[in-house]
Amino acid sequence: MKTIGILGGMGPLATVDLFRRIVEGTDAASDREHIPMVIDNNTAIPDRTQAILHGGESPVPQMVRSAVRLEAMGADVLIMPCNTAHFFYDALQPFLGVPMLHMIRETLEEARRRGVRRAGLLATDGTCQSGVYHRVFEPAGVTLLTPDEAGQREVMRVIYEGVKAGRAAFDTRALRRALDALTAQGAQTLILGCTELPLAFARYDLAGYETLNPTEVLARAAIREAMGAPAGR
Amino acid sequence: MKTIGILGGMGPLATVDLFRRIVEGTDAASDREHIPMVIDNNTAIPDRTQAILHGGESPVPQMVRSAVRLEAMGADVLIMPCNTAHFFYDALQPFLGVPMLHMIRETLEEARRRGVRRAGLLATDGTCQSGVYHRVFEPAGVTLLTPDEAGQREVMRVIYEGVKAGRAAFDTRALRRALDALTAQGAQTLILGCTELPLAFARYDLAGYETLNPTEVLARAAIREAMGAPAGR
Repeated sequence: MKTIGILGGMGPLATVDLFRRIVEGTDAASDREHIPMVIDNNTAIPDRTQAILHGGESPVPQMVRSAVRLEAMGADVLIMPCNTAHFFYDALQPFLGVPMLHMIRETLEEARRRGVRRAGLLATDGTCQSGVYHRVFEPAGVTLLTPDEAGQREVMRVIYEGVKAGRAAFDTRALRRALDALTAQGAQTLILGCTELPLAFARYDLAGYETLNPTEVLARAAIREAMGAPAGR
Repeated sequence: MKTIGILGGMGPLATVDLFRRIVEGTDAASDREHIPMVIDNNTAIPDRTQAILHGGESPVPQMVRSAVRLEAMGADVLIMPCNTAHFFYDALQPFLGVPMLHMIRETLEEARRRGVRRAGLLATDGTCQSGVYHRVFEPAGVTLLTPDEAGQREVMRVIYEGVKAGRAAFDTRALRRALDALTAQGAQTLILGCTELPLAFARYDLAGYETLNPTEVLARAAIREAMGAPAGR
């Protein structure tokens, strides 16, 4: 089996969520049948949205430090549980000695398998405005719908003031109006395009929507990748 | 803040559980206020109970390799989410360059804070028979009660055939009879002395018992340790 390296900390709960999905998704009857993983919960990585939209500190140096550390720990393949961070995917490549799976390309493949032609994109301002999803989805003929300004503010609020702030409860009425509007515009599914959103959907009152969870898609892709070849250590 | 290193994979779900408890237990309003952590989910570590009781392969070399890798990743303090593994705590010390918290000693401190004088110990055969809990608790005047032979078999079954095997459901009637017997013998609390047991108690039908969870105790001790001193990287 290959060793999976998780470039984590963006955010920490999303890192826990991806780790858990890989362990629970692995067909193993004992500890030793599980996939070896190394995780860097690097909480020094600057905010990705701030860097993309507001000239904030670049997260690339800390992301590179994590990736190189993970390789030194024996990682054969890298994954990042942060959609917005994939804006910097190409910038990381010259520094990497092992492949990194691309969460958004994997999500496109899953959308195609499900026959999705129009999807709602729920994500940070950084992910939406940087076009990190659009650049992958639009050339493949999948149309992405995003919430209007007020709806997008609610998406940001549930991510930053809900999950990242560790709140146990959150008033989702305004957010649900934005989701209903996307469905009315023909969205066949809602892409939970920020790794904190599956946690928001599980934790707050947001049941009943057809969703596509990139964290779950990435976990399954990582399991396939790890199981596909002999171990690196 | 100090960087916490988790010597994990014993088992993988217990490693997820400890990681999650540290993240959720940290008072942080943004990613960057969280504790930096590095995790080695080392699934090559041989079974601890097999090694202690049945002459199985020693887990020490793989545990040492993980510990040294974690230090190389920047860990300032190490923790192990496996009770049985603490049988090898002393054997690891000569190889370590940073301190390792001792889950069982931390659990004793918590039992004392709660005024516990008699506790039921639910743990693997390896943990029970090696005396890893007894050596810490008995000199401190806390009496440990263990299940009878049939009850102990049920404890092992829920760990290995329930949680480690990834089962969603488990018939706990025989196990509950064993827990009731410990309570009848005067156990003021049940120590969930295997990191898979809190998962079993959360997942299967085992509510209503007063319990002491060493994984939760270790998570809180690690948070205190990480917050107490300046960062190592």
